[in-house]
Amino acid sequence: MTMGHFKAVYHVEGTKDSISSRVEDITVEQTVEFPLDLIERQDILDEIVGKVVSVDPIDEGLFETVIEYPVETAGDELPQLLNVLFGNISIKPGIRLIRFDLTEELYAKFEGPRFGRNGLRDLLNAHNRPLVCTAIKPMGLSPRELADLAYRFALGGIDMIKDDHGLSDQSFCPFDERVERCSEAVAKASEKTGRNCLYFPNITGPIEQVLIRAKKAKNAGAGGVVISPGIIGLDTMRMVAGDDSIGLPELFHPALTGSFTVNPGTGISHGALYGQISRLAGADAAIFPSFLGRFSFSEDECTDLVRGTEYSMGQIKASFPVPAGGMSTSRIPELLDFYGKDVILLIGGDLHRSGPDLTQNCKEFVELVTG
Amino acid sequence: MTMGHFKAVYHVEGTKDSISSRVEDITVEQTVEFPLDLIERQDILDEIVGKVVSVDPIDEGLFETVIEYPVETAGDELPQLLNVLFGNISIKPGIRLIRFDLTEELYAKFEGPRFGRNGLRDLLNAHNRPLVCTAIKPMGLSPRELADLAYRFALGGIDMIKDDHGLSDQSFCPFDERVERCSEAVAKASEKTGRNCLYFPNITGPIEQVLIRAKKAKNAGAGGVVISPGIIGLDTMRMVAGDDSIGLPELFHPALTGSFTVNPGTGISHGALYGQISRLAGADAAIFPSFLGRFSFSEDECTDLVRGTEYSMGQIKASFPVPAGGMSTSRIPELLDFYGKDVILLIGGDLHRSGPDLTQNCKEFVELVTG
Repeated sequence: MTMGHFKAVYHVEGTKDSISSRVEDITVEQTVEFPLDLIERQDILDEIVGKVVSVDPIDEGLFETVIEYPVETAGDELPQLLNVLFGNISIKPGIRLIRFDLTEELYAKFEGPRFGRNGLRDLLNAHNRPLVCTAIKPMGLSPRELADLAYRFALGGIDMIKDDHGLSDQSFCPFDERVERCSEAVAKASEKTGRNCLYFPNITGPIEQVLIRAKKAKNAGAGGVVISPGIIGLDTMRMVAGDDSIGLPELFHPALTGSFTVNPGTGISHGALYGQISRLAGADAAIFPSFLGRFSFSEDECTDLVRGTEYSMGQIKASFPVPAGGMSTSRIPELLDFYGKDVILLIGGDLHRSGPDLTQNCKEFVELVTG
Repeated sequence: MTMGHFKAVYHVEGTKDSISSRVEDITVEQTVEFPLDLIERQDILDEIVGKVVSVDPIDEGLFETVIEYPVETAGDELPQLLNVLFGNISIKPGIRLIRFDLTEELYAKFEGPRFGRNGLRDLLNAHNRPLVCTAIKPMGLSPRELADLAYRFALGGIDMIKDDHGLSDQSFCPFDERVERCSEAVAKASEKTGRNCLYFPNITGPIEQVLIRAKKAKNAGAGGVVISPGIIGLDTMRMVAGDDSIGLPELFHPALTGSFTVNPGTGISHGALYGQISRLAGADAAIFPSFLGRFSFSEDECTDLVRGTEYSMGQIKASFPVPAGGMSTSRIPELLDFYGKDVILLIGGDLHRSGPDLTQNCKEFVELVTG
């Protein structure tokens, strides 16, 4: 077995006395999960168990360690790669996955985002500016009402219009009707404006339905899809991204993933989860609750997340960060100052606040961002 | 819309002054995700937004709240139900989902465990005692070596033999060959002992492969499957459980789910995740790192988890708790004292410690548990 090693960086709580056994423990837990003294085959000890590359103190009671794992342990599969990176140790307190570096050969097993930053810009013919996005909501509106909103948003020059992630296939808003009406409404508006607006229906749903919904979205003329991989699995997102019969850009919604990032001492870093792992799963853009919104990510966490969306990962394309979560148009200058132009700004509810004419509100939003 | 409401119980950090807005915020975030003052339709305010049923202080800075959501918001789907219960608020600090009560009608939309406690006991013809389980490992062994282990375990009277959750389809241990050899070995041993030993291969893998691997397992004569829904999604587990062409019991492995439970103030309680949600996803038994093992669940957390496996949930069957995680046979009396007879005891590496004759070690383990 000589396919090389991939590296993972963890932050591990411990003391000068405990840290070395804490870190060795990770190398075992994530691979053989077996008492080393009972392993008879020397080649398993040499070639399967992870190895500690370095351990460095970085703060009071906190260490950064680099561990390398044999490429073979990941079996060329995203699920098993995730399992080796963080499967069992997710259960142990005081360990956080910070980032990882696969080998070029292992990266090559993953297709990553089909479009990525440049591809999405090509689709929208918008190469030198931030992109603007909004959501159709609230839950409870009918497909006809949502399509009407989408039409007015698209007329106002929005680049991307997504379903609220809580819209699935409820009795008051069936998926099929919603996707058909909204796709049609957005196409009609695009014809009028001469711009290419993309509609992203939410295809998160029963696993047997995901590809079916993706294909329906494609057939209806949708411009992309929204998936919540925290709910239906990162590998499901990868499957949809890789399906040539669909071929649509994918928006990663963070629902149910917060428990990975919300406690700084455990879980997975924002950059590794919403950036690196999300790209392995094929996300062209990752939505997250930005600082300046109603949620809780800090500036540092947002910086780390952006880093993950463009961190060098072999042939895997960079994705867009999509700061969101109750932001108001009044914060746009600050947001642009922070994120620069490689960003998709997503403003939802607040677009309804500045006046009764939604299309006008959108025009002002677009002007603020791109003007 | 008059299909009733389901209830969720959360623990929420806050002060006497902040708690009421913190809790109201959940009712909005999990449903309309839209400023209430901008919602024009009164019926959406009345019939879609969640409602606070109660808020009670339970500790310094901690409150228990009961919130009810309209059944329609969940759209009769596990993914959307999970989204309403904990999707966006997973991202907010200081909120933990403790338990939930669906309506009988909503429970009836889910098949739950195909076997459950009684069904698994029927399969094993073991109605009045704890069950015994072990794992074939370490990663790095060939299918032939693993099959040899499985044979010796089965000869020793083990009820259930599972793949280590790190065995996927690696080059050194291809899925097909492993499952065929191990199924055959266990069948051969069962013929010799006259007992029915069940072999559970791990079918966690690329999403396109999961059903294929489940069917291969079935065809090879496997007795069940192991799935890590933290890695490939709870709804994938549900799909496999509900597939009549497979019809095998499912073991829930907790890989990558630890971030939900590891921090007491956030995430999902052990009872709700490994008990209630795991049962909605069709798990007949849930593996978890028990106190007395090498991991970190406390006695209280284990108690809560067991409660979740048998909590009243309409027609959904009770599942087995499977305490595991580096336990030694010397702790069996304490474990039995704590868990009683409705338990599957899983001991892995330590079974190799008590002597060179694995079959004899298993016999002693079985005798300790069932004798």
